[in-house]
Amino acid sequence: MEYKVERLLVNYKTLEEFKEFKGYGLQELSMVDDLEANIIENDSQSPFYGIYFGDKLVARMSLYERSAKFDRYFEPNQDFLELWKLEVLPKYQKKGYGETLVEFAKRFGLPIKTNPRVKSQEFWNRMGFQPVEYDMERDLGENPLLWHPQGLKSS
Amino acid sequence: MEYKVERLLVNYKTLEEFKEFKGYGLQELSMVDDLEANIIENDSQSPFYGIYFGDKLVARMSLYERSAKFDRYFEPNQDFLELWKLEVLPKYQKKGYGETLVEFAKRFGLPIKTNPRVKSQEFWNRMGFQPVEYDMERDLGENPLLWHPQGLKSS
Repeated sequence: MEYKVERLLVNYKTLEEFKEFKGYGLQELSMVDDLEANIIENDSQSPFYGIYFGDKLVARMSLYERSAKFDRYFEPNQDFLELWKLEVLPKYQKKGYGETLVEFAKRFGLPIKTNPRVKSQEFWNRMGFQPVEYDMERDLGENPLLWHPQGLKSS
Repeated sequence: MEYKVERLLVNYKTLEEFKEFKGYGLQELSMVDDLEANIIENDSQSPFYGIYFGDKLVARMSLYERSAKFDRYFEPNQDFLELWKLEVLPKYQKKGYGETLVEFAKRFGLPIKTNPRVKSQEFWNRMGFQPVEYDMERDLGENPLLWHPQGLKSS
């Protein structure tokens, strides 16, 4: 299980590959628009990291560092990473691609918040992520999970 | 298409019915906990509205009014409704239950924000909801859609 995680650059090839992922949505569409309108340059950095199998992008996630002032999850408030759109293409699942991406995210040494699909709870549990105490005003229909480099102090 | 929309009360029967919905997650689990710990009373009001077919809950959504100070979507900032977990059980789809719930939400006369699955875009489009201009800091992996009683002025 030695996969290389790469920061993905925004270009037409990558955006075309993104179409294979279920999570394709507004974020990707806006990248296409920005590229076409020259608002961003070809090969700009993106918040996406991915793993290639040969030439094919088979797994990806988005990572974004938020400053402590946006933190409503950790005590005391601190800078943390938002992780979203973790996804492995169906044929490549159960081979450790997802684990590799999450382990990569952990190596930044920051707490991580993610809001995964309900069905993936077991995976996240295995990766050391824990559910928050539900707060309707903050969480609405989300299912936030948290990970902290030193272990979570409060839920 | 004359369905009666009801505010759902938090009790064990409703929470049991929620298990049939894909969106079952932290929100529902926390309601079960609160009920068991007597933090909330049996038959407390919930943010859920639903439609019954006979005795069976076949469609639901959550609605929550947010004050203008949390508004990052409308110009000028205003009170608005968050709508989430709109879901119709598979056997009851394509019969207008979803439309009825959304029309019910519109009758509160407030702007509405929702963050639906990518695949349901066509439904929301038909209901008059429009995508926002993507803002990574705010939207991350979301696909927010907005509706305004007087029509949307800006995207």
